[in-house]
Order: sequence, then structure tokens, then C-alpha cells
Amino acid sequence: MRFALLASAVSKSFVPTKTLRRLHLSSASSSPMAASEESLRLALAEKQATVDAQAEAVRALKARPGAVKPEIDAAVECLKALKVEAGAAARQLQAAVSRNGNASAACSREAFRQAVVNTLERRLFYIPSFKIYRGVAGLYDYGPPGCAVKSNVLTFWRQHFVLEENMLEVDCPCVTPEVVLKASGHVDKFTDLMVKDEKTGTCYRADHLLKDYCKQKLEKDLALSAEQAAELKHVLAMLDDFSAEELGAKLKDYGITAPDTKNTLSDPYPFNLMFQTSIGPSGILPGYMRPETAQGIFVNFKDLYYYNGNKLPFAAAQIGQAFRNEISPRQGLLRVREFTLAEIEHFVDPEDKSHSKFIDVANLEFLMFPRREQMAGESAIPIILGEAVSKGIVNNETLGYFIGRVYLFLTRLGIDKERLRFRQHLPNEMAHYAADCWDAEIECSYGWIECVGIADRSAYDLRAHSEKSGVPLVAHEKFSEPREIEKLVIVPSKKELGLSFKGNQKMVVEALEAMNEKEALEMKASLESKGEVEFYVCTLGKAVVITKKMVAISIEKKKEHQRVFTPSVIEPSFGIGRIIYCLFEHSFYTRPSKSVEEQLNVFRFPPLVAPIKCTVFPLIKTAKFDDVAKIIAKSLTAAGVSHIIDITGTSIGKRYARTDEIGVPFAVTVDSTDSVTIRERDSKEQIRVSIDEVASVVKEVADGQSTWSDITGRYPAHVAAQSNEE
Amino acid sequence: MRFALLASAVSKSFVPTKTLRRLHLSSASSSPMAASEESLRLALAEKQATVDAQAEAVRALKARPGAVKPEIDAAVECLKALKVEAGAAARQLQAAVSRNGNASAACSREAFRQAVVNTLERRLFYIPSFKIYRGVAGLYDYGPPGCAVKSNVLTFWRQHFVLEENMLEVDCPCVTPEVVLKASGHVDKFTDLMVKDEKTGTCYRADHLLKDYCKQKLEKDLALSAEQAAELKHVLAMLDDFSAEELGAKLKDYGITAPDTKNTLSDPYPFNLMFQTSIGPSGILPGYMRPETAQGIFVNFKDLYYYNGNKLPFAAAQIGQAFRNEISPRQGLLRVREFTLAEIEHFVDPEDKSHSKFIDVANLEFLMFPRREQMAGESAIPIILGEAVSKGIVNNETLGYFIGRVYLFLTRLGIDKERLRFRQHLPNEMAHYAADCWDAEIECSYGWIECVGIADRSAYDLRAHSEKSGVPLVAHEKFSEPREIEKLVIVPSKKELGLSFKGNQKMVVEALEAMNEKEALEMKASLESKGEVEFYVCTLGKAVVITKKMVAISIEKKKEHQRVFTPSVIEPSFGIGRIIYCLFEHSFYTRPSKSVEEQLNVFRFPPLVAPIKCTVFPLIKTAKFDDVAKIIAKSLTAAGVSHIIDITGTSIGKRYARTDEIGVPFAVTVDSTDSVTIRERDSKEQIRVSIDEVASVVKEVADGQSTWSDITGRYPAHVAAQSNEE
Repeated sequence: MRFALLASAVSKSFVPTKTLRRLHLSSASSSPMAASEESLRLALAEKQATVDAQAEAVRALKARPGAVKPEIDAAVECLKALKVEAGAAARQLQAAVSRNGNASAACSREAFRQAVVNTLERRLFYIPSFKIYRGVAGLYDYGPPGCAVKSNVLTFWRQHFVLEENMLEVDCPCVTPEVVLKASGHVDKFTDLMVKDEKTGTCYRADHLLKDYCKQKLEKDLALSAEQAAELKHVLAMLDDFSAEELGAKLKDYGITAPDTKNTLSDPYPFNLMFQTSIGPSGILPGYMRPETAQGIFVNFKDLYYYNGNKLPFAAAQIGQAFRNEISPRQGLLRVREFTLAEIEHFVDPEDKSHSKFIDVANLEFLMFPRREQMAGESAIPIILGEAVSKGIVNNETLGYFIGRVYLFLTRLGIDKERLRFRQHLPNEMAHYAADCWDAEIECSYGWIECVGIADRSAYDLRAHSEKSGVPLVAHEKFSEPREIEKLVIVPSKKELGLSFKGNQKMVVEALEAMNEKEALEMKASLESKGEVEFYVCTLGKAVVITKKMVAISIEKKKEHQRVFTPSVIEPSFGIGRIIYCLFEHSFYTRPSKSVEEQLNVFRFPPLVAPIKCTVFPLIKTAKFDDVAKIIAKSLTAAGVSHIIDITGTSIGKRYARTDEIGVPFAVTVDSTDSVTIRERDSKEQIRVSIDEVASVVKEVADGQSTWSDITGRYPAHVAAQSNEE
Repeated sequence: MRFALLASAVSKSFVPTKTLRRLHLSSASSSPMAASEESLRLALAEKQATVDAQAEAVRALKARPGAVKPEIDAAVECLKALKVEAGAAARQLQAAVSRNGNASAACSREAFRQAVVNTLERRLFYIPSFKIYRGVAGLYDYGPPGCAVKSNVLTFWRQHFVLEENMLEVDCPCVTPEVVLKASGHVDKFTDLMVKDEKTGTCYRADHLLKDYCKQKLEKDLALSAEQAAELKHVLAMLDDFSAEELGAKLKDYGITAPDTKNTLSDPYPFNLMFQTSIGPSGILPGYMRPETAQGIFVNFKDLYYYNGNKLPFAAAQIGQAFRNEISPRQGLLRVREFTLAEIEHFVDPEDKSHSKFIDVANLEFLMFPRREQMAGESAIPIILGEAVSKGIVNNETLGYFIGRVYLFLTRLGIDKERLRFRQHLPNEMAHYAADCWDAEIECSYGWIECVGIADRSAYDLRAHSEKSGVPLVAHEKFSEPREIEKLVIVPSKKELGLSFKGNQKMVVEALEAMNEKEALEMKASLESKGEVEFYVCTLGKAVVITKKMVAISIEKKKEHQRVFTPSVIEPSFGIGRIIYCLFEHSFYTRPSKSVEEQLNVFRFPPLVAPIKCTVFPLIKTAKFDDVAKIIAKSLTAAGVSHIIDITGTSIGKRYARTDEIGVPFAVTVDSTDSVTIRERDSKEQIRVSIDEVASVVKEVADGQSTWSDITGRYPAHVAAQSNEE
């Protein structure tokens, strides 16, 4: 969980999730690349030893009385040559380390990110919250264009999922009483391991410190032996699996101290990531800000099932804020203390996870990264979704259906399909109850980022709330005619057991009753053949001997009119802020400016997500062009097309650049009083359209009814103004 | 503030807001109705006194030896007659009290509310949150239809305000560090007065207990003297103005105890209504869940002003959750602990509050309730908005413009214009800095509810954050050519002041420098004529004598190139949950069922807000009708029309009733394979439309492009199926 990049899918599993960064490292260590790094380390160590030996020889030679100058010179020359060789070996190793750690790629990624983030912050896509008060780590505001993008993404999410599937959307509060999050497990287990600077009290995530240390060492310390390097890589790979004790031991072993003060650190201890508060004035009802929206749906299952006419399958959905009091937020918008989640809980009969609309997505082909490929150190591969399900790579049709729908959702938003993959959780990443789990990961400058989790969580959540609340959260399947059911009946003889086990009788009875069918039938067979059997009672921590008299085991036939069961839930959970950040990176590019020596920034948002669909510019500042611009603005408002007028006197090229930089796909330039030009952002092509038609043409392309190339054929191209481009 | 029903408008004024309930009461006490109640109380007291006297006489007569039976009988008859008279007087008083307190109307309002709320909860418009854990007071979930209504209301809000006015929408976190809410005043003053049951610790709002006591007394205790009744009414009217001490004294005077236990109560003390938490792991950064969304906009003023090209006026907007840890939430959806606010901050030059689009709303006429009418005990009156502004009833055009836009917004949602009024705040309700403030109040079964506050808050908020953060939140007006400005210059002579006032010198200097132009010029004149002047220094709490030598006051002429000023802000603030609840009540009606002795519930939502636009029913359960229904459903999805299919075998009448009950405006009934009927919810009229056209016709009426009556002319009416109605 320490690495859980996305909220919901993981928080509930309470099993560490590995991001791909980790997998990268572990697979890298077994790759040929890593082998060459190891041999280079060996070679460098040998060269260095030769240099040291020669230097020693030179010193000895110089100290020797009567040594002749030519001899000394020759030895010094030899030392120099050896040093040059050692230097070359060091450079080779450095290059190999950089290649493996992608240091130079990391540099250019870093530069790219800086360019994107600078543009985003300067144009108020987002800004650190409460900036005039010096901000709070992990809290961000969406400014006007960011807020518009977010709103467009959520509107499309509603249309693509809720409307398309007739999902039951709900809206629950963020303030949540403790009992709910006790049942879900968050109160006890939603923690990260933390260490404190023993003098200043500053807190750090223990795994972050260890990770930073290992990475630094691997990148900077060329004197590292191959064994030491291998150990550090192993530690990085194991980071998520360490207990508090193991983490603490590693920190001590490596002598890791507080980064700023070099003070000693406390032992790691768990810190609960939920924001705590108190509900009502008495102070006796503890509450938390929800860490995910899913629980609001689970606790309403009974009402929602009834609302759906007591029929399965059905899905409920919720969009809302979730909160995580991160110990030390990093990575900008990717790890924040408050974020918008969009979650779907699709409830389904565990015995039938087929999906009637699977056929609609079965032919999609995209990058998938199944367990097998990960374990083999291979890469993600394109797979046809239908095959992934039929071959059992994806557990069931419903899970597959949502994987396909998520793929369509993300690519329609503008996520690059080459940098999108669906990665299956490894067995040790999944909770014991989960049937299968896939993350939609998007590659950005921070690496592969988990943006959507799609998990088959079986019956875990509903069972947990049933138990805690005492309200059965179950579904019923009425049989058209009664069915004969074979039912296992275990009847322990309390009298016999009491005689043999005295005070332990209760534990033995419970253990007998808890046997599953297989165990019970095996016991029945043994008792019938041998008369007695050894039976391990875990609450006693030992085996006892059970005899035939002590328990009656039988299979009875019963007529049943319905089946009562806890539905399975398949949960696609979307980290909206992460998707938006990746979308920003995937949409960003620069192009040269005509007039000045600088790059111009462009976001190539599809009209669907563009914060504003259209800008309106009077070419020059005159009252009559301003009036036309106002008329066009009014007709755009009436057509429901979001737009802005820019009547500043700046050059048209500057105004185009300004509008490209927030990703406005279309610009209307008023250069006459009867017709105007419409310019498309990426091609910079322009067409000439009469004023009456402008709003409807822009609406047509902005709504996606037509593409730009559809309409360019219908209107005359306008070329003159091209020279206006910056 | 204790009565502040809507979040934002009031929270910041820190001055008690009166709901209309209070105004009702205070105006009632001076109305003829109240006068008749008083005379009836007097009459009853007289009659009762006569009864008591006669009863005493009868007792005396009976006790007198030798009293004759006829005499006694006559006296008893007389007593009986007097009792009848007293009874009649009591009934008259009861009726008058009921009339004034609207007891019988209250009963029917209560019954109406029960019918609405039952329907809303049964159909999952909303439900108490965490119901399976017995819920938490003041927290509600919106279920599927409620969530859809909310989403439609917010979408329309964005379209009507943000898109129409090109507002800058932002999205800030709920978690807010203390410093921000310290600056805004919430940390110190956002409180309600609370009392505790001294034995059990149960908390109550002090004013609620006092109010309940007074109302009960007035309604039930007929023996109340006219003076006592007047006092109780006075207390009710003053409820919001009482200090903690005054409230405590009243509770003691009336012997009010804890409602459940009758234990004694603590003295009232302030309880801060914000949910507190701690940001980050160290526990040293206190934070709160924001009580309103407005502060997120104020702290971003500088960036937003820059984003807008350093031009005024402009508006920023935000939709988001806000939180108030109410002491004892009552009134269902109207007073909750977490709610959605939609707030606009329109920044404007304080010297020019005209609005270019005011003309678009100037001709609107609707119920307004200005100060004058409230003080005179009169009712709200229809006023033409343009006149309200030109006559100075509404302070300025921008404020007037938003009042008009809010009126249009609410009535288009379906709020009944007869039960909507704009009430001006009385002087004592407004903060000292506010220029003018109007609440959109909607009448529902709880009385007149403040749903939107529209306040001209002048420069208060920006100044508060400027001071606290040290970042100037100001606007600039560049002059086209430099202007000669007369500037007041006050130069206190620290030396002279030091000699006279020693340690108090600093306070006197500050007070002198803080004088406004008028005060300074008056002082200058006095100093020139008399040589000295008395000057009150509030930080010293006394007046001091200022002589000519101590201060130089002059008006200097300066050339200035720009004017730097703090903008005024006009803030329309919408309580979305309250608007939705009132909309539920205004949309609800019942109509008789044909087949059974029961009333059918209908919500007459306009298509704009209806949770689902259309239901699709196969008339009878056959595969071919089901197939047609599926085809229609698919075309509705493609057209973006939200819908559900109901293929249950229930009678068509039952299915209509079910769909009416969640306010679905149109129902498509599949009764053949080439054409179907479309039924309108309120008129129950049906037209016959071919299958190909269904989606586009439904879209046309659902989107509001056409009305039902527009399209009924175009298609044949279908009458046969009318008999299917329940």
C-alpha cells in the first residue's frame, strides 16, 4: 500500500502495490544490461587495483636510493596510462549506470516536465492552494482552464459510464463516522510507515528515505562492488514488502539520518492516512474524511438493489472528493492530500460474471501487461481483449468489459494509446479475496502511473459491512421451481467432546463446524474407515484426536426455493486528477515561433476536453469589428459553446499563441463585417465562414459531430492570415 | 448567525441573520391579529375570574347552613353558564393563537411535508447517510434520482452563470489551513451558543431550547397573561441578538432544563461550527473543513485578476462541498453538516457598480421585500427590478443584475414564483462593511427559507487577506494621462506628542494617522481657530487634547498615473441542497388513482431538472416489444437522453405511476413494432410517433427546444391507452 498510487483500488487490499518503477528495477536487474553493468564494475575495480599497485610502485621507486630518472619516468608514464584506462572504465560504468537508471532520459523527462508544469501554473490550469499564505504541500487549486478541463472530463465520464450503462449514481458525504471505516478496515490498516527526526520532530516516509538512499548510492557511488549494488537493487525491489522492523533495520544498517539535519531517526511506526475529525459538539463521535468514495455505495447496497428491482447485475457510481493525509506529498498533482475520485461498483452474481455488452469491446486491441510477462521481465504486449478473456488472462467477461470501456474512455480524452497499458496485479499485490485486478497505467515524466484500478473484489466489502452492521447485504435468486440441494450437515456431539476436551470443548466444536465440504467429507471417510482421525484446531494451536462418536457428518438433500448470496463487486476506480495530469503531458508540445527565437507551447486537447472551445478576436481594434465579435459571442453562448473574446490590441499572432497555450481548438478572427476566419489550432489552417454560420460550424466541430477535415472541404481556405502566425 | 440558514452569505457577516420566522413573529405582534389575541386573552382572564368568583359563591352557598336548594341550583346553573362562556372564550383564544401561529396550517403543512418526504425517501431521492449503522444526524446521501436532479441543477447553474458571464471557475480543496480561516474570521467567530446537560453531557443549541419553550408556552398555555405573552414574543424576536449571558439568564428565569432528562443545563458557551482536523503527520498544522467555498476565491484574487488581463469587473465562481458541524441538526435537508455550495464572487470597482447587462433584467417584476415593508409589518410586494435600482431600494446595478439572474435561475428550475421573494437584510442583520444584502427566500413547509444570499460585501474579504498574508490584493486603474489628485497628509509630531503623552504616544500617533478626510479637515479647522481640540483615542478609551504643534494636516496636490484600490465584491451564494429541497416541495402534487382508493404522487419537474427524461415500456411482455424497446433505448443513448427501460410485467398504469413518482416527464410505450406512443406526465396526453422519430422527438422536448404543446400538433393523438392510467 505504500506505493498505492491510486486511491481506491489498493487502499482496500492492504497489500502493498508495486508501481512499475519497482518492476522496472527488478526486471532490469536480471537483464543483459544489468549484467554488463556488473562486469563493468568488476573491470573498474580491477583497473583501480592496478592503478593503486602502480602508484605504490612509483612511490617505492622514488624512495629507493639511486633510482634513475628514466626508470622513474617510465613508471610514471605507465601509471598515467593506467589511470587513463581506469578513467575510461569509470566513464563506461557511469554510462551503463545512467543507461540502466535512464539518467539522461530522466534529465530530458525532467526538462519536459518543467516546461509543461511552468505552462500549467502560469496559465492557472492549477496552482498550489493558499499560495499567498505560502501554500500547503499536497493541496492544489484548479484555476479556470484546469477547472474547465476537469468539468469536461467528469461530464464525459458520466456520459460514457453512468448514462451508457444506466448506472445508479449516488452522492454521499465526505464526513464519515468511524464505525464505517472500522468495518472497511481503514481505521486499522490504512497506514504508511513513518520516521521522525528525533530532535526536530520532522516526519518522513520511511520507505522514501530508504529508496532515495539506494537510488543515490546506485547512481553516484562508482566504488560500489557488484554485490553491494545487487543488494541495493534487491532492497528497492522489496521496499513494499518490508515490515516496520525490517525497514527500521535497513535504515540503521545504512546509517540513514534525517535528510535536512542529519539527526538520528526514530524507529518506523504506522501513521494512519485519514484526516480525523469529530462529529457533533460532544466530541464522542469520531469521524474521518473518507479516503475513497466506494464505502458510501457499499453501505447503501440494500436500498440500491431494491431500487433496481432486486435484480443483478447493476452498477452504482459516485464522483466525489476523497482525502489522504499523506506524510510528505511529492510528485505534484499525482500525490495529493485531497482529490476527486470517480468510482463504479458493479454488483454481479459470483456464479455468472458474463456481460451482455462484452461483444462491443471484444475486438479492441491494446497494450496489456499480464502477470506472465511481468514475471518474465518482458514488456507489455498488444492483446485483443476478447482473446485475453477467452484465454483466461483476464478473469471474466465483466472485468474485461470494463477494461475495454476504460481504454475507450482514456483514449477518447486524448491519452496516447502508445503510453497506456493495462497491468495485471501480481499475486502478492492483490488482497487474498480479490479474483483479479488490472491497473490502467499511463506513462508520463514520472514513469508509469496507476490512474484507474479495475478490480474484481469478490464479496469482501459487502460481507465486511454485513458483519459489522448486522444488516444482511445479500441478493436473492428465486428459482422458477424448487431445487433439490445437497447440504453438508455437521453435528458435533457436545457431550462426547465435553468428556474428552473439558474446557477446550467449545473450540473443538467451532473448529468442526467451520470445516468446508472437502475437509468434512475427508473426515467422514477417515472416521468410517479408521474410527478416528487427527484434527488440527487452530484456536488451540494443536491437533486433537476425533473419534466416530464425537461428530456426525452427513450430506442431506433439501428443497430450496431461492438462492441467497453475497454479490461479487467489480470496481473500476478513477483517479481523476492523475488522468488529467497525464492528459496535460500527453497533449503538450512546442513549435517554433516565426518572429522570435522561442518555442511556443500548445496543448492539443481534443474539443471534448478543451477548457474553452473557441476564442473570438477582432483582427484590429475598431468598434465595428468589436461589434461583430460581440454578435458572434452571443450566438456562441446561445449554441452552448464556451468561448472568450480577446479584444486586447496585441498582434493576432500573439493572441493565437496565447490561445494555443491553453489548448483552445478553434479561433474566430473578425477581419470583416460579413465573414470571418476560423483557425484550427494544430494545423493552423483557416477557413472563411459567413458570420451567420460561425456558431453552428464551431458547434459542429466542437461537439465532435464533424472533424476539422470534414468541414474544410465545405468552406474556402483562407491563406493570407497565415503570415500572422508568430 | 445562529439563524443563518444559508452558509456563506451570512457566516461572514458575524451578525445574526433573522429568518422570516422571526420577522413574522415580530410583525405579527404589532398587527391587528395580535391585538385581537391580546383582547381575547384579557376577555378570557375576566371570564375565568367571574367563573372563579361564582364557583367560590357556590361553595359558600352550599356551606351555608340552611341554604335552599333552588337558590343553590340557580347559582350552579349560573356557574355552568359562566363556564360555557369561559370555554367559548378559551376556544376563541385558542383559535386566534392557532391563526397567528398558523397551528392548523402548520398541521396541514406537516402532513404535506410527510407525503413529500416519504416519497423522496422511498424513491431514494435522498436517504440518511450510513443508514445500516443507524445514520448520523445532518448527513444525507442523494440516491439515483436525487443525484441526477442535483447534477442537472449544477449543470444549469454552470450554463446560466459561468458560461453566460464568462466567469472564471475555480476548484479549491475542502481542507483549509487555520491561517486562512483566522483571516476570514471563522476561527474566532463562526460559533453557535451551546448548553450541556450537566449530568449526561448531551449538547443543545441554547437558542433552540429557548425558542421551543416560548413557542410551546404561547401555543399551549391559555392562562398566559397578555403581558407574559408579549414578553415571550419579544424574546422570540430578540433570540438572535442575545449574548451568551442574556441567553443564560433567560434559560434560568424560565427554569428551562434538558428536554430529555430534565437535568440542569450548563451556562451557554460558544461552540465553533467548523470540523477541525490536522494537516500532515506532525500534528502541528491545524486545519478545518471549509465552511464555505468563497475563501478559496479570495486568496486567489491576485492570480485571477492577472488571468483576466488586470481588468475589472470580473467574476470567479466555485461549486463545492462545505461543512458545518451543527450542534443539533433539524429540518432534514435544510440544515445539514455537509452541503454543496455554488458561489460567485463578482469583483468590481467600488466607484462604478454599473452593469452592462442590467438592461436585460431591468423589466423583470417579482416579489421583493425591502427593509421599509419589513419594518412596517407589511408583506412582500411585486416590484419592477429596474425601478428598485433607480429608486435606490437596491443599492446598485450589479447587485440588481444578480438578483434578476437569480430570479430567472430559480424560476427556470421550477420554483413557484408566487413562493419566491427577495428579502433585503435589515440594518442590524448586515455586517458593518456590507453595502446591501438580499436573500432569495423560498417558501416551503418549513416557512420562508433563505436559499441564495446576494450580498455586496464591499472590500472586506480582500482587505482581511491582504492584511493577514501581507500580499496586496488590489486592482489598478491606469489613467490615460496623469491626474492631479488632492491627497490628505497627516504628519503627527512624534516629539511633541512624546512630551505630552509619554508611553501613550504611539496610540495617539496611530489614531491621528487613522483619521479620514472629514475628521482631519475638521481637526485642522479647529486647530486653526482654537489652537487645540479634544480628540478621542479609542485604543486609550479616552479623549486627549491635541494642540497645533502636535500635528500638521494639509491637502497636497500630487500627480498620479494610476489609482490603486481594493475592489468591492458582490457575492451571490447558492445553497444547492436547499434549492433542491424547495424544488421537491414545489414540484410535488398528488392526483386520484382510477382503480384504487389512493392518491398517486407526481413530481412536475421541468425536463431541465427531471432525473430521467424518458421511460421506455413494452406494453406487454413479448420478445418483439422488448426488442423495439432496446432499439429505442439505444437511439436515446445516442441522442444523449437519459432514460430507463421498465420491462417488468406490471400493468402499464402501475408503471406510469412509478415513473410519475420520480418526475420522469415522458414515457414511451411500445405497443407495436413500427410506431409507439409518447405520454406527457402532467397532462397524461399521448401522441403516436414512428420508431425512427422517437429519440429526436423526445430529445426536442427534453432539451426544451420545443414544448409539449408544440409537438402535439405535429403527431396524431393517441387516446385508447388513456384507460390504462391507474
